Amino acid sequence: MDVKQKERDFLQYVRKMESYQEALNLMYWDLRTKAPKNGMDHRAETIGVLSAEWFQMSVSDEMKNFLDELSESDVFAKLSRVGQKTVQLCKEDYVKNVKIPKEEYQAYAVLQSKSETVWEEAKEKADFERFAPYLKKLIEFNKKFISYWGFKGHPYNTLLDHYEPGVTVEMLDKVFNQLKEQFIPFVDQIVESEHKPDTSFLYQKFQKKQQREFSKFLLKEIGYNFDAGRLDDTVHPFEIKIHHGDVRITAKYDEYDFRTAVFGTIHEGGHAIYEQNIAGHLAGTPLDEGASMGIHESQSLFYENMIGRNYSFWKRYYQKLKQYSPGQFEHVALDDFYRAVNEVKPSLIRIEADELTYSLHIIVRYEIEKLLFEGALSVEELPHVWNEKYKQYLGIAPDHDGNGILQDVHWAGGSFGYFPSYALGYMYAAQFKQKIETDLSDLDQLIENGEFAAIRSWLSKHIHQYGKMKKPLEIVMEATGEPLNPTYFIQYLEQKYKDIYRLK
Amino acid sequence: MDVKQKERDFLQYVRKMESYQEALNLMYWDLRTKAPKNGMDHRAETIGVLSAEWFQMSVSDEMKNFLDELSESDVFAKLSRVGQKTVQLCKEDYVKNVKIPKEEYQAYAVLQSKSETVWEEAKEKADFERFAPYLKKLIEFNKKFISYWGFKGHPYNTLLDHYEPGVTVEMLDKVFNQLKEQFIPFVDQIVESEHKPDTSFLYQKFQKKQQREFSKFLLKEIGYNFDAGRLDDTVHPFEIKIHHGDVRITAKYDEYDFRTAVFGTIHEGGHAIYEQNIAGHLAGTPLDEGASMGIHESQSLFYENMIGRNYSFWKRYYQKLKQYSPGQFEHVALDDFYRAVNEVKPSLIRIEADELTYSLHIIVRYEIEKLLFEGALSVEELPHVWNEKYKQYLGIAPDHDGNGILQDVHWAGGSFGYFPSYALGYMYAAQFKQKIETDLSDLDQLIENGEFAAIRSWLSKHIHQYGKMKKPLEIVMEATGEPLNPTYFIQYLEQKYKDIYRLK
Repeated sequence: MDVKQKERDFLQYVRKMESYQEALNLMYWDLRTKAPKNGMDHRAETIGVLSAEWFQMSVSDEMKNFLDELSESDVFAKLSRVGQKTVQLCKEDYVKNVKIPKEEYQAYAVLQSKSETVWEEAKEKADFERFAPYLKKLIEFNKKFISYWGFKGHPYNTLLDHYEPGVTVEMLDKVFNQLKEQFIPFVDQIVESEHKPDTSFLYQKFQKKQQREFSKFLLKEIGYNFDAGRLDDTVHPFEIKIHHGDVRITAKYDEYDFRTAVFGTIHEGGHAIYEQNIAGHLAGTPLDEGASMGIHESQSLFYENMIGRNYSFWKRYYQKLKQYSPGQFEHVALDDFYRAVNEVKPSLIRIEADELTYSLHIIVRYEIEKLLFEGALSVEELPHVWNEKYKQYLGIAPDHDGNGILQDVHWAGGSFGYFPSYALGYMYAAQFKQKIETDLSDLDQLIENGEFAAIRSWLSKHIHQYGKMKKPLEIVMEATGEPLNPTYFIQYLEQKYKDIYRLK
Repeated sequence: MDVKQKERDFLQYVRKMESYQEALNLMYWDLRTKAPKNGMDHRAETIGVLSAEWFQMSVSDEMKNFLDELSESDVFAKLSRVGQKTVQLCKEDYVKNVKIPKEEYQAYAVLQSKSETVWEEAKEKADFERFAPYLKKLIEFNKKFISYWGFKGHPYNTLLDHYEPGVTVEMLDKVFNQLKEQFIPFVDQIVESEHKPDTSFLYQKFQKKQQREFSKFLLKEIGYNFDAGRLDDTVHPFEIKIHHGDVRITAKYDEYDFRTAVFGTIHEGGHAIYEQNIAGHLAGTPLDEGASMGIHESQSLFYENMIGRNYSFWKRYYQKLKQYSPGQFEHVALDDFYRAVNEVKPSLIRIEADELTYSLHIIVRYEIEKLLFEGALSVEELPHVWNEKYKQYLGIAPDHDGNGILQDVHWAGGSFGYFPSYALGYMYAAQFKQKIETDLSDLDQLIENGEFAAIRSWLSKHIHQYGKMKKPLEIVMEATGEPLNPTYFIQYLEQKYKDIYRLK
């Protein structure tokens, strides 16, 4: 066998799969930003056709032959690094996908799509009963999938592994317990603090157009490359890689709360800077993508919170913000502004949570998912358990299921094991921050001096460039010299919020 | 054989091909309106991959089997009308594409892409020598294709048939001679007329944003549906159907000549109204598209010229235009405005030509293409012949090849036999206009009363709804009761321009 030729053929096959992905990504972006309202059904059908085509290629006999031949140890050894990693990734997908009978895969796809529709109605009417039968079926399907795929230790590990390869229940139990021990009493202290920031000035009218200009300005400052992307309006903000040279972000504007757009854009900008800095030679392969959900989130959260909500950041840009805004900050001192945009307040809705309480929202979901897949909790019991956990961890409870158990779309889409990635993102981010400070200098100082290129360059060198060439825990280990360690995250938050709330 | 099942399978196969087309159309639209500058090469590569996939499906064994089985007369008779027409269309494509050896098809695709790049440079430097070798090869390829496909009468007929099925050299010679006989002396008269319109007021600053708003207003008036489309900025305006419920148009804005955007948008709007009104049950098949280039152009030209440059149209909207514009029309009487936007002036550039001289530009190209494929003209002689014909038909000659023989991109893209469709579009449009006036009432009157819905409804009933269910000449015959007849076009122009130039 001509190994080099075989590798080229394989990478060409994979390039074709990536072409479908590129088309699908563009269609998704277009639906969320530009497409007119008619013909949505037609577009959905087309997306179905092309996704099926992609899936078919991932489990085809041709794929199997490539993987079999290229995995032979003497052949594998002769492949390029990119070839080797691509074989490994495709094999993981192949093994996972091929085990599910085609009819079940299709039935599951139909169920997902129906469930999202039902969930939407159920959420609006705060009617959990309506959604429960679908949720049950979704869980049943996932249990069956776990039985096909097998599991090590806890059955939920198999689901976690989808989004955060290598992460296990054993690991998460340990770190989440640490977070709970620290954060629950800490949040209590804050709730009782007498030095709460005044946030009234946040809710004044600030024109969309001006917000957009200011957001663009900040994106350029932190290093988002507009020659390889663009910013558009949308309802639910997201970042999407169309292909290597085209990584787009979207923003939502609330004219009575500028934080939505400004911090949302920096967040999506963090995701996009990651994708824009993956090494060019990975383009056209499935390696040209962030390592995992958690690592991705670490980058967006690092930019949003550790940079964007940093005192030095606003020391640098507060004046500029005032130029774009209609005067609402004229009589607000920088210090008061900083404290206001870092307000901590236990709330019912995860996506509106501050960086301190956020992890507690995740832990509620993690604990519930774990119980569900252990078979220790029934769907009927869910609302009650949810509300209890909110009371226990956040000190508040939903007044109805719409802002309780029904608030997130994830389960309706069949995403179980996904939520922990958000919390992991925070922990990774703080651990990277710590190492940046060791390697370069104090982050506050770097930001105050506008050394965003240096920060980005560190992140690219240790994280971005690799794309999916490394697994998430490998990245953490090699970038910081130690395994996941939640201490940095805890320290970062304690230091920051003790100062803001003037606690001892 | 279960015929109904077979038909469903076939239509599903075709729906998949249409999905590739939808993805390709969206990518094209995106490249021309939204895509950032980096990664253009990557996108081009992806377009290549998906186009090849489409092509492969059009000539696959699976396609052959479908066509063979469904074409059997007893089977064919049992198909739905849509099934029958789809079989016929796919068969035409199959027969055409399968005859070209794969290597030749690929070599030709590479040549096309290279030629366009070379042409761009050559045009800029007015250096025909640079482009000539590519043009030669393109012609050679097309001659070879004609030999594969065969021809009836004149070899050029085969090329004409691509864009305008059924149209032949014999037909075109006759109608183009009529046009030449009438228009060449008529243009001379106009050039010598003493009653030329004053056009100086056209070239004043008119803000892009205001032009865009006014264009949108007019699009809505004539019946373009913004729920099933959108308007974006671009460099070379176009209309593109993404899918049945999503037909987009683009506009170019010249702040010192509002006509570019206003008439350009009405033109593209005419194309789009055609596509938006094709019958819904054709969606997802190759029938969901205009019947031919010429019929398409008839709709855009009808809207642009017969509606948009009509006196009654401006009687209705001149006041509105004044509201959007910065005052440049304050002291211009409606009559003078009308005459100015209908100025006739022989010029070197086809795409800037008025409706009277336009056909002469086309006739030059038609005569040259015909000679080339007869083998009666060599590439070397082209610039000379071009310049001679311009002198003869339009009374002016290019000062260099950049605004002469090199002005159009079409040949560089391998499009021979395409130009006549533009002139046919004018003739079809005038013939439809005549019939509308018989069936409804005087067009001027309809426009003055804003009865655009009635006009659109006539066009939809006789033309739009059919998509590709009918061939172009069938449409003309059935809509107007007679075959192509250039007399209506000649009469329309003579009447209009005798009035404008006050000729007897």
